[in-house]
Amino acid sequence: MKIKGVMAVVSGPSGVGKGTICTCLAEKYDDFFLSISATSRSPRPNEIDGVHYYFKTQQEFDEMIENDQLLEYARYVGKSYGTPKKPCMEHIEKGENVILEIEVQGGTKVKEKEPNTIMIFVVPPSLEELESRLRGRGTETEEAIKQRLSRAKEELKLMKNYDYIVVNDSVEEAAERIRSIMIAESFKTENMINTVKEELEL
Amino acid sequence: MKIKGVMAVVSGPSGVGKGTICTCLAEKYDDFFLSISATSRSPRPNEIDGVHYYFKTQQEFDEMIENDQLLEYARYVGKSYGTPKKPCMEHIEKGENVILEIEVQGGTKVKEKEPNTIMIFVVPPSLEELESRLRGRGTETEEAIKQRLSRAKEELKLMKNYDYIVVNDSVEEAAERIRSIMIAESFKTENMINTVKEELEL
Repeated sequence: MKIKGVMAVVSGPSGVGKGTICTCLAEKYDDFFLSISATSRSPRPNEIDGVHYYFKTQQEFDEMIENDQLLEYARYVGKSYGTPKKPCMEHIEKGENVILEIEVQGGTKVKEKEPNTIMIFVVPPSLEELESRLRGRGTETEEAIKQRLSRAKEELKLMKNYDYIVVNDSVEEAAERIRSIMIAESFKTENMINTVKEELEL
Repeated sequence: MKIKGVMAVVSGPSGVGKGTICTCLAEKYDDFFLSISATSRSPRPNEIDGVHYYFKTQQEFDEMIENDQLLEYARYVGKSYGTPKKPCMEHIEKGENVILEIEVQGGTKVKEKEPNTIMIFVVPPSLEELESRLRGRGTETEEAIKQRLSRAKEELKLMKNYDYIVVNDSVEEAAERIRSIMIAESFKTENMINTVKEELEL
């Protein structure tokens, strides 16, 4: 029986490890894909078009906006970034699953455009753990870490708007939890009933 | 972070293999338990109290009803059968998951008493497959098989009242799907948000 794929937005505060979790999931399972963003910024050395980003001119990017080809987009330091709709929908039609690792504002826009999107928020096991992960990067001043931590606390308040909250006590476990959520969603009655009725001639 | 367990009702038409799926799940995973029914019928040879059933006198059973100790109960061929509430709740409190393999009427009663119960309906991949499974038992007349099949079709119409529909194309896959559903449910925002707020001091 043909099972349709699903799309999930994965958000969470800076430092929580959502990037690592999503990469882990996509590397481990053939039917899970990380969405690739489009951007109008120039590729850096060793960045490949269609792998790290879809690189577009600003004009091409603006045309994608006009033609409603983006699930969400935003400007950052004078450049445009967004999520192309078509590749996501193609995976889903094939019965595969798509993960958008994206901040809360962008996630909300995706949900508005595609109401079936599953909203998953990743939280740290504790604030101490989050702080030590932010420190672990070892690249920032005490002042910057304090700021990030205070911003993370603000971001955490937004978890109430999400469908699921996943604790990241280990990358592998968190990845398995997100996978479970996405599998479960594809078997919701509203997603299955038409296919099942057809196949069983009811 | 402490994750609460969940309870699921697993129903489906006769012959669909729900018993095999549930047993597979409980045998494979330490934190998944099959609920054990109480009954007023006498134990058969090699049936063990607390393993196959909780064996009760009719008076004991009636007292359990009066004291609201059963999630559901029914009479069948002059004897009582029901699902004791306490062991289920104890597993859930410990962060374990409980599966009730139960027909639709009983399942509906459980959902009324415990609205957080997840309702999962198992369907065959096709009607031909269901028929061949019913025949495979090799113990029934053509007439009886026809009757069972026609009843199965009626039962299948009730899937629309369930939260999830799981296709049983293979026992292992169906068991994994049910496991995913139960894990996913425990990470729903409404089930997680209080614990997370507490642990993260928000």
